[in-house]
Amino acid sequence: MSDEKRTEISDLGEFGLIEKINESARAELTTTIKGIGDDASVHDAGDKYILISTDLLIEGVHFDLAYMPIQHLGFKAIAVNISDIVAMNGTPKQMTVSLALSNRFSAEAVQVFYEGVKAACEKYNVDLVGGDTTASPSGLMISVTAMGECDKEKIVYRSGAKENDILCVSGDFGGALVGLQVLEREKQEFLANPEMQPKLDDYEYIVGRQLRPQARLDIVHELAQVGVVPTSMIDVSDGLTSDLFHICKQSDVGFSIYEDKLPIDKQTFETAAEFSMDPNACALNGGEDYELAFTVKQEDFDKIEKFEDISSIGYMHSKEKGRVLVTSGNQIIELEAKGWKHF
Amino acid sequence: MSDEKRTEISDLGEFGLIEKINESARAELTTTIKGIGDDASVHDAGDKYILISTDLLIEGVHFDLAYMPIQHLGFKAIAVNISDIVAMNGTPKQMTVSLALSNRFSAEAVQVFYEGVKAACEKYNVDLVGGDTTASPSGLMISVTAMGECDKEKIVYRSGAKENDILCVSGDFGGALVGLQVLEREKQEFLANPEMQPKLDDYEYIVGRQLRPQARLDIVHELAQVGVVPTSMIDVSDGLTSDLFHICKQSDVGFSIYEDKLPIDKQTFETAAEFSMDPNACALNGGEDYELAFTVKQEDFDKIEKFEDISSIGYMHSKEKGRVLVTSGNQIIELEAKGWKHF
Repeated sequence: MSDEKRTEISDLGEFGLIEKINESARAELTTTIKGIGDDASVHDAGDKYILISTDLLIEGVHFDLAYMPIQHLGFKAIAVNISDIVAMNGTPKQMTVSLALSNRFSAEAVQVFYEGVKAACEKYNVDLVGGDTTASPSGLMISVTAMGECDKEKIVYRSGAKENDILCVSGDFGGALVGLQVLEREKQEFLANPEMQPKLDDYEYIVGRQLRPQARLDIVHELAQVGVVPTSMIDVSDGLTSDLFHICKQSDVGFSIYEDKLPIDKQTFETAAEFSMDPNACALNGGEDYELAFTVKQEDFDKIEKFEDISSIGYMHSKEKGRVLVTSGNQIIELEAKGWKHF
Repeated sequence: MSDEKRTEISDLGEFGLIEKINESARAELTTTIKGIGDDASVHDAGDKYILISTDLLIEGVHFDLAYMPIQHLGFKAIAVNISDIVAMNGTPKQMTVSLALSNRFSAEAVQVFYEGVKAACEKYNVDLVGGDTTASPSGLMISVTAMGECDKEKIVYRSGAKENDILCVSGDFGGALVGLQVLEREKQEFLANPEMQPKLDDYEYIVGRQLRPQARLDIVHELAQVGVVPTSMIDVSDGLTSDLFHICKQSDVGFSIYEDKLPIDKQTFETAAEFSMDPNACALNGGEDYELAFTVKQEDFDKIEKFEDISSIGYMHSKEKGRVLVTSGNQIIELEAKGWKHF
């Protein structure tokens, strides 16, 4: 293609590239209920819907083995994919894990990686049923695919949010990003002085958020327990604002969220201050929390209010009213998506 | 892990590594009918079985863009995964394609790749429903997952072959390997003299076998048409002998195949001679043909004999009688598996 037009992928950006690729998407089969454009695809298998989601994790792009123990990496690779099945209100069933490895990696390291995979499979009660393993010219590349099931009447898309729905989230936000800052700082200090022992004791929660995130399968179970099917749902991997924008775009609505309702852990809050970062900005734009953001009808809200790990942070309204943050000082700020950039 | 025992993956080999990984496999769910160990995993979704298969394709390991047009690569990535679903006697339904790309690749190149993906999806009537796209520190890595369905009574494993079953194959063998020799030779000549035009006209069939292999979904349809369910089946990706060994191991049987029954295309035969290669050895050990090898009960054989693209090459017998080739001169040769080695 040397004589032809050349557009750098970095000029298009990840979302631009994905849009180009989506032009090749095909959803022709009557059994394909949902193709590209949600957390997982949906296939009608008769009795049930089958959900498929896949992720790539590339060394030097998505993880740094200088501070990511390879066992945690195995756990995380599974958890982040299960999170996508969970975001459809589904139950994960089977996983495949493929690895491309350079000769830097020993067989023992691969086994330790799989110990993490196995721990996650046990935690979320999914089976590891396949994969592929091959040489790589450089570094480690992991490809994980999750397959799950969902009862047809319980499936939740990004596209179902309605005006006046309550906007809820699970867990807390910003921890994974602030945890990453701690790990980066320790790495730099270690490089400067290899004798130094890492000082992570005070940061256990947020470092854990970065290294060993959890998929919120428990939330799916809680919703089922009280018979609530959210009107829309997404897993927050790129950042809360950025992922809420997907719900807005696909549901054709806007939202207001309240700064003083953003769930932020004390450790996230204090450590952000240590790095002179705004904890609210970390909660809004930090990625990799792998919590759920979802909307419920007003009449359903009192059924889920009792669950400690679910917070309401705002509500949905017309698109015309925008996508806004109401600050503690009652200022209204139009939000911008600031997701992760890999290219 | 610097102080710990270090085993090089190259010392274990691909199969040794896979064996280690299989120790982490988990197949605990009652809905997991088949985990690791066949062409695809099998999940019981109520009405139907759901099949999942996944493959990694790494630049410099599995393909060389010096002679592999990127559009064909897109096609091949889909076809080889569909081949795994087909080998379970299943119907492919949905695909995901993930790419990790270095900045060597333009957005246009990615689009051309997806044109190949789309062509394959149309040919095999499957939907492209997801994927992931990210930066790569070097080269191109492709991860494809195929999801398919199978009626429960039609599923075929590697493990069902019985003594006296007839051993059949689709298509012909060795073409992809000999085609690769042609492409390698043209690449060397091009490197020596970049003005040279490639001379591929006389090798169209075998070069096509290498660059644009086909999944034998047509064979699944033919079998269904005459109501034959094979007793075992595998797709021949590593090499005929090596893949038949999987059937033997899992079915606890042996086989005899006849040299003069090996289906070899005239172009494969003649070109092998040009490279001083034994065409029979190419057919037995050359990989990437993506044909099907399967066994049927004797009483079913006359129902499939009429299909031009199916040949019987031998029969199954007790494990004690070995895995043998009967030569044209009536010599009996014990076969050895010579699969692909990536590490």
